[in-house]
Amino acid sequence: MVDDPDAFVPAFVAAWMARDGDALAALFAPDADFVNVVGIWWEDRADIARAHSYALRSFFAETRLVPGRVKVRDLGDVAVIHARMALTGQRLPDGGRAGARTTILSFVLERTSGGWQAVSAQNTDVVPGAETRVAQDDRLSPGDYR
Amino acid sequence: MVDDPDAFVPAFVAAWMARDGDALAALFAPDADFVNVVGIWWEDRADIARAHSYALRSFFAETRLVPGRVKVRDLGDVAVIHARMALTGQRLPDGGRAGARTTILSFVLERTSGGWQAVSAQNTDVVPGAETRVAQDDRLSPGDYR
Repeated sequence: MVDDPDAFVPAFVAAWMARDGDALAALFAPDADFVNVVGIWWEDRADIARAHSYALRSFFAETRLVPGRVKVRDLGDVAVIHARMALTGQRLPDGGRAGARTTILSFVLERTSGGWQAVSAQNTDVVPGAETRVAQDDRLSPGDYR
Repeated sequence: MVDDPDAFVPAFVAAWMARDGDALAALFAPDADFVNVVGIWWEDRADIARAHSYALRSFFAETRLVPGRVKVRDLGDVAVIHARMALTGQRLPDGGRAGARTTILSFVLERTSGGWQAVSAQNTDVVPGAETRVAQDDRLSPGDYR
């Protein structure tokens, strides 16, 4: 919970840099949606806390998350935030270091009696020079086709 | 513009299947944000129309877009929609066919006097089995590091 939408991205980044998944999740509503960069979709605060606590203790333990441009759209009691993020220091499963990358992380905040909290977040990797994603193999199970 | 948030995803899919980038963009506010699956960030309706018209005439010309689960969050005069999408039939630059893939496409809709329109959309590819994205090479320019 933050007092103002402009305080949200700094609070998110501060929780990340403190490796504090619970503090990060506390910025979200109990039933918030969070879609991460590979399309994992969490639907409550406890799952957001658990996933970020795990990641911030493992492959993101040494990362530096730096916000770039932040755009806030005022919709009255709702705000939409887009933030460009730069991420460095990610570890590979083999212990090596992954390349630096940028993402666009967006949030939907709702005003409550106690302040502003996120009801939704979604992250998308920025792939320089690409127009769209290309799957090399089918990623659908037969039931997905209908 | 649609009469009801529940009508949004069907209208988006109908415009896609009609290969009509203008009809698709007409569902968005003039100053809407749209972050595509590789992090291209369009910030107005004309750019959303142009990009989708191009894609739907080229690499997406033979695609089938099928919505799966759709979740609508009611925030009063704002609605947040998450839709699982299955995409088949994408063409590769060499003319071959890309694999089928799924994405999570979310929207923020605002109620206006004329109906509901999207002020934001963001798409993220679902990568089965992955926890996060890994960049093989640095994707940042020196200025991104700060």
